[in-house]
Amino acid sequence: MSQKDGVKKHELHALSGAYDTYLEHDESEKNHFDDVCRAFRQHATFVMSQWANHQFRLHALPQSQRDLLPDALKHGTPDFNKRASHYKDAAIRNQFCFDCMLRHAGVPHSQQQVTPITKVPSDEQMSKITSVLKSLARDWSAEGKRERDMAYVPIIEQIKKYMPLSDLLPHDRPTIAVPGAGVGRLAFELTKLGYAVQGNEFSLYMLLASDFMLNGGIATPDRPLRISPWILESRNSHSSADRCRSIPIPDVDPTTLLNSGGNAMPPIFSMAAGDFVSIYSNPSEAGKWDCVCSCFFMDACPNIVEILQIIHKMLKPGGYLMNFGPLLYHWSGPPMRPDDESPDAYHSRFQHLDDRYLKSVDLSYEDVKETMMKVGFEVVEEHVGMESLYTADERSMQSTMYNCVNFVARKRRSEYVKQEL
Amino acid sequence: MSQKDGVKKHELHALSGAYDTYLEHDESEKNHFDDVCRAFRQHATFVMSQWANHQFRLHALPQSQRDLLPDALKHGTPDFNKRASHYKDAAIRNQFCFDCMLRHAGVPHSQQQVTPITKVPSDEQMSKITSVLKSLARDWSAEGKRERDMAYVPIIEQIKKYMPLSDLLPHDRPTIAVPGAGVGRLAFELTKLGYAVQGNEFSLYMLLASDFMLNGGIATPDRPLRISPWILESRNSHSSADRCRSIPIPDVDPTTLLNSGGNAMPPIFSMAAGDFVSIYSNPSEAGKWDCVCSCFFMDACPNIVEILQIIHKMLKPGGYLMNFGPLLYHWSGPPMRPDDESPDAYHSRFQHLDDRYLKSVDLSYEDVKETMMKVGFEVVEEHVGMESLYTADERSMQSTMYNCVNFVARKRRSEYVKQEL
Repeated sequence: MSQKDGVKKHELHALSGAYDTYLEHDESEKNHFDDVCRAFRQHATFVMSQWANHQFRLHALPQSQRDLLPDALKHGTPDFNKRASHYKDAAIRNQFCFDCMLRHAGVPHSQQQVTPITKVPSDEQMSKITSVLKSLARDWSAEGKRERDMAYVPIIEQIKKYMPLSDLLPHDRPTIAVPGAGVGRLAFELTKLGYAVQGNEFSLYMLLASDFMLNGGIATPDRPLRISPWILESRNSHSSADRCRSIPIPDVDPTTLLNSGGNAMPPIFSMAAGDFVSIYSNPSEAGKWDCVCSCFFMDACPNIVEILQIIHKMLKPGGYLMNFGPLLYHWSGPPMRPDDESPDAYHSRFQHLDDRYLKSVDLSYEDVKETMMKVGFEVVEEHVGMESLYTADERSMQSTMYNCVNFVARKRRSEYVKQEL
Repeated sequence: MSQKDGVKKHELHALSGAYDTYLEHDESEKNHFDDVCRAFRQHATFVMSQWANHQFRLHALPQSQRDLLPDALKHGTPDFNKRASHYKDAAIRNQFCFDCMLRHAGVPHSQQQVTPITKVPSDEQMSKITSVLKSLARDWSAEGKRERDMAYVPIIEQIKKYMPLSDLLPHDRPTIAVPGAGVGRLAFELTKLGYAVQGNEFSLYMLLASDFMLNGGIATPDRPLRISPWILESRNSHSSADRCRSIPIPDVDPTTLLNSGGNAMPPIFSMAAGDFVSIYSNPSEAGKWDCVCSCFFMDACPNIVEILQIIHKMLKPGGYLMNFGPLLYHWSGPPMRPDDESPDAYHSRFQHLDDRYLKSVDLSYEDVKETMMKVGFEVVEEHVGMESLYTADERSMQSTMYNCVNFVARKRRSEYVKQEL
């Protein structure tokens, strides 16, 4: 991931168009926006390349081995044609979903490409496109409920426990920031409960998808879109039908709720597009928030000490940090070697990499907790070993199980005040 | 992994020295042996580089953030010195274990390095060294029992069910081949039960370790070696103590059992070092085996159709293939892109990669099963979704859960005989 994966500047938007202002910024931001849209447009083309690759590989087997394959893997048989057609359907289905997002964003979709394609997105970009599909399944499908119950429900219950709403007037609703909001379900659920919520997301891939889901008004439980998020998973499949299966999104209608104010209180919701550190370290954010709700987020930044400082600063005295997640440290980076005789030698080996990959300090949870205390928090509730999945295919033979840490920390009211000045 | 990761030729050994004949072969095999031994010698040096890297990264934080760190992360404090010493102890502990293996193999260990080190192993080689430690924990520690119970017990129970021993004379003991034998526990358990077992392993890293465990006579439950297999895992740790913890190996004494013949029947056990395909496709192996016991193995070869053919050929009529594992397809390789206009264009992008990465045909289990029927098997028992771990750190916040397929397939006695001729 490069700096270009998100907006650098601080952008606040009410209910839609979190990325509109991209086009008003400098050339590099516009180019990044174009790159992301181009990747969205080429998903199906990539999916079909994988089909071609599988055919090449099968064809390279000796005839004596090809004879032993199921009919569905023999070119031209009825079973083959049926499977090919299911695969292609899945590619088109996903592309239609991406095209809807592009249309909502007001840019050409895959069917409107007027100039010939001269630039093919990188494998890394295409993998981000697939992550969008998997995140949509996690956040907005009935199949994703199992994951949401594991990760979101504990946090939501803690928010309800420590910041009950019942007695509050509309303008007293607690303010909650949700960094790493992804495609928006957790932020949406908290808004639905009546909290004043701001999601924050860095990745433009995710922003395009969340804006479409929350504000597009196209996909509803009655007229869902269908996606096949696992179409590119050739490994650990029980059957090709598992890979090609489609799941409907969404399982709830976010637009009705957010726009109509069907609630007694009109919803308060915004998205802040851009880097968490640059947005929330702004002095105007200091002491403004009742709660930061961090779900699979704290380990997504290279410097966890800085993250804790910023969260502490942005909270009101007595405000809460609710955390749920592992410590994967996405920016952990490659190992150092004995022949790297200095930090410079180590860094110079990886000049092609985003510099953040060489910076993560990878603290253990024990050290995170001690740092958190010194920053000025007190832990009021803590659970370890909470099992959780993240965009797992429930039909795959392989899944990553996270044994998460879940805690509620409170910004101390009186102590450490000096540190903050 | 390159061709050089194992022996190419067919080598059979009774109880020891599975790699001795390396030195009798061509120069490239000798070089590979030297490379592997060099990697074994440098484990502790690599581990200490990682420590240095962490210090560099911490030191690069602004002073205001360093002040917030726990004492154990502040250079020179008693807590820091204590943690540094635990970390170094773990590095030395692992190195001692590797040095014992090298001594058993009759080559210089890390303390006997006479010439200055001029060649530093690759990161990939060092990662294989770490895999050896993790495999030792899986196979030979009490902590590994949970994993062994998940993966080995179902297979062992099926072997006992379909090939009971009680009524057999010593020379009638069923013969079982265990490809992908790793560091040897499953093969050992079957030998202990009284079967005539041959393990097969390609990786010289694993062969050096399994030979030491099975025949070294150094480590016993009374006088165990201690290893710290997770010392390099900086992510998803609850505490630095978790990473540095040591576990004793072995939990049973393999040498006593295999050498003394404490059994009523003397054990029959051998290791075949080298590539499964080249060893067992030899005509001399045809119809020789009562059982092939494949645990986390079938997906480790690029061509699963060929594997099924060879297993079928090497079995006696009515012989069994017992399988337990996922379909991870280790050789699945990088994705093809729309701008790869032909298989050649795709292949030419990856000339630095082992060619096998571009060949795996990644069949779904449904297709594997149909191929297996056509090869000449019948499935007599089948279980899917069997949860299993593989060299997982039980204290980590992240683990990979495999939902394995477990089946017993039998080589048909009469049909398809023509195919075999």
